[in-house]
Amino acid sequence: MNLILLFKNDFTGDDNAVRLSGRRYRHITEIHRASVGDELCVGLANGNVGSGKVTVIGMDFLEMDVRLDRRPPEKLPLTLVLAMPRPIALGRILAAVAAMGVGKVALIGSGRVEKSYWQSPVLNEEKIKEHLILGLEQARDTVMPEVIIRKLFKPFVEDELPDIIKGTMPIAAHPEAETACPRSEGSPVTLAVGPEGGFLPYETEKLRQTGFSLVTIGNRILKVETAIPYIISRLF
Amino acid sequence: MNLILLFKNDFTGDDNAVRLSGRRYRHITEIHRASVGDELCVGLANGNVGSGKVTVIGMDFLEMDVRLDRRPPEKLPLTLVLAMPRPIALGRILAAVAAMGVGKVALIGSGRVEKSYWQSPVLNEEKIKEHLILGLEQARDTVMPEVIIRKLFKPFVEDELPDIIKGTMPIAAHPEAETACPRSEGSPVTLAVGPEGGFLPYETEKLRQTGFSLVTIGNRILKVETAIPYIISRLF
Repeated sequence: MNLILLFKNDFTGDDNAVRLSGRRYRHITEIHRASVGDELCVGLANGNVGSGKVTVIGMDFLEMDVRLDRRPPEKLPLTLVLAMPRPIALGRILAAVAAMGVGKVALIGSGRVEKSYWQSPVLNEEKIKEHLILGLEQARDTVMPEVIIRKLFKPFVEDELPDIIKGTMPIAAHPEAETACPRSEGSPVTLAVGPEGGFLPYETEKLRQTGFSLVTIGNRILKVETAIPYIISRLF
Repeated sequence: MNLILLFKNDFTGDDNAVRLSGRRYRHITEIHRASVGDELCVGLANGNVGSGKVTVIGMDFLEMDVRLDRRPPEKLPLTLVLAMPRPIALGRILAAVAAMGVGKVALIGSGRVEKSYWQSPVLNEEKIKEHLILGLEQARDTVMPEVIIRKLFKPFVEDELPDIIKGTMPIAAHPEAETACPRSEGSPVTLAVGPEGGFLPYETEKLRQTGFSLVTIGNRILKVETAIPYIISRLF
């Protein structure tokens, strides 16, 4: 936790005072081992970042005086369209994606996504938020990425994707593509990443018809959770 | 498993015939759902890659006729010097590092590496090999990366690192560095990555004296397992 993420209801009403308990209390007292008077990096969810001076430490809560005077880091101009990964990997992937500054994620269905994945409790809204918060705290960001879930590939690609890709370079990572993933463009991108095993031929064709170019990162096939930071680093 | 990794003792002695059981048998019959006559991508540990045609499927073994006629993908000219990560993440990191084609990894101590990590069973030679094999199978490589373990930072940096960095660009990833990580150099690199929380000031100073430049990947602090593919992608 390189930043303590605060929410509106953490404020006691007394101007700049916040009161924290639970996970953040334990982290600050046990990992940071903070004492009264120490300053920590804090940020308000979807707001500014700054510092918080510990003013009170109790048995199960602490209070800080916070000053929120800086903008959080810029988001990447990137929407990630990601075939639903194995549930055990989803939390880590969402945290990493939030940490890297991705603004929007669409978790979508694909022929190679096991049906059972959609029943997983990791897709619960609160669980998703927990993982995004871990990523924001890691990277000292405050702005929650938007996550949408679309189980059906075809209606998503036909009805929603054309609007999403407007004004962006739409690319789909595909091991068998012949075009190399572009480097360091910096301009807005919509990046589609398939499931382990890749999108089905029908799906890559559908993406191509929608305007996507298929790109490769070389002849080594990487796991989705390795491929995502690998590709994002290349793009920005 | 995009490639079935074979070992010398899988060969039955009958020229190109191999007999597999255990994990690989289950994977081929349950995940690939292969039948007699099917061809799969195979590779000989530290040797060529090619294809294997399934000739026999038994209750708990199968046989293939293999043809190993192509070189495995090139390794990256990269040595990764990595502060020992949390044991729970080490396996995933080693698999990803093997998949990306890193040739050599040194797992080292650092002030911020918890002493208890060194007692973890994940550091057992067989366990390390298991994770490396998963990475090779993922990326269709056959050449096992070399992994060395050095618990003590100072003697490693003073006595071994000068030889390791010869002929390479030595860089250390450090969130507070002012120089941006170089992009797409392609030339040999020794990359040092600290623990969560970073190398201690004494340690970065020691690395600098040894010839390392401190480089940053921006103002977002990433977890080690995200930072490694992110940096490697930038370098090569």
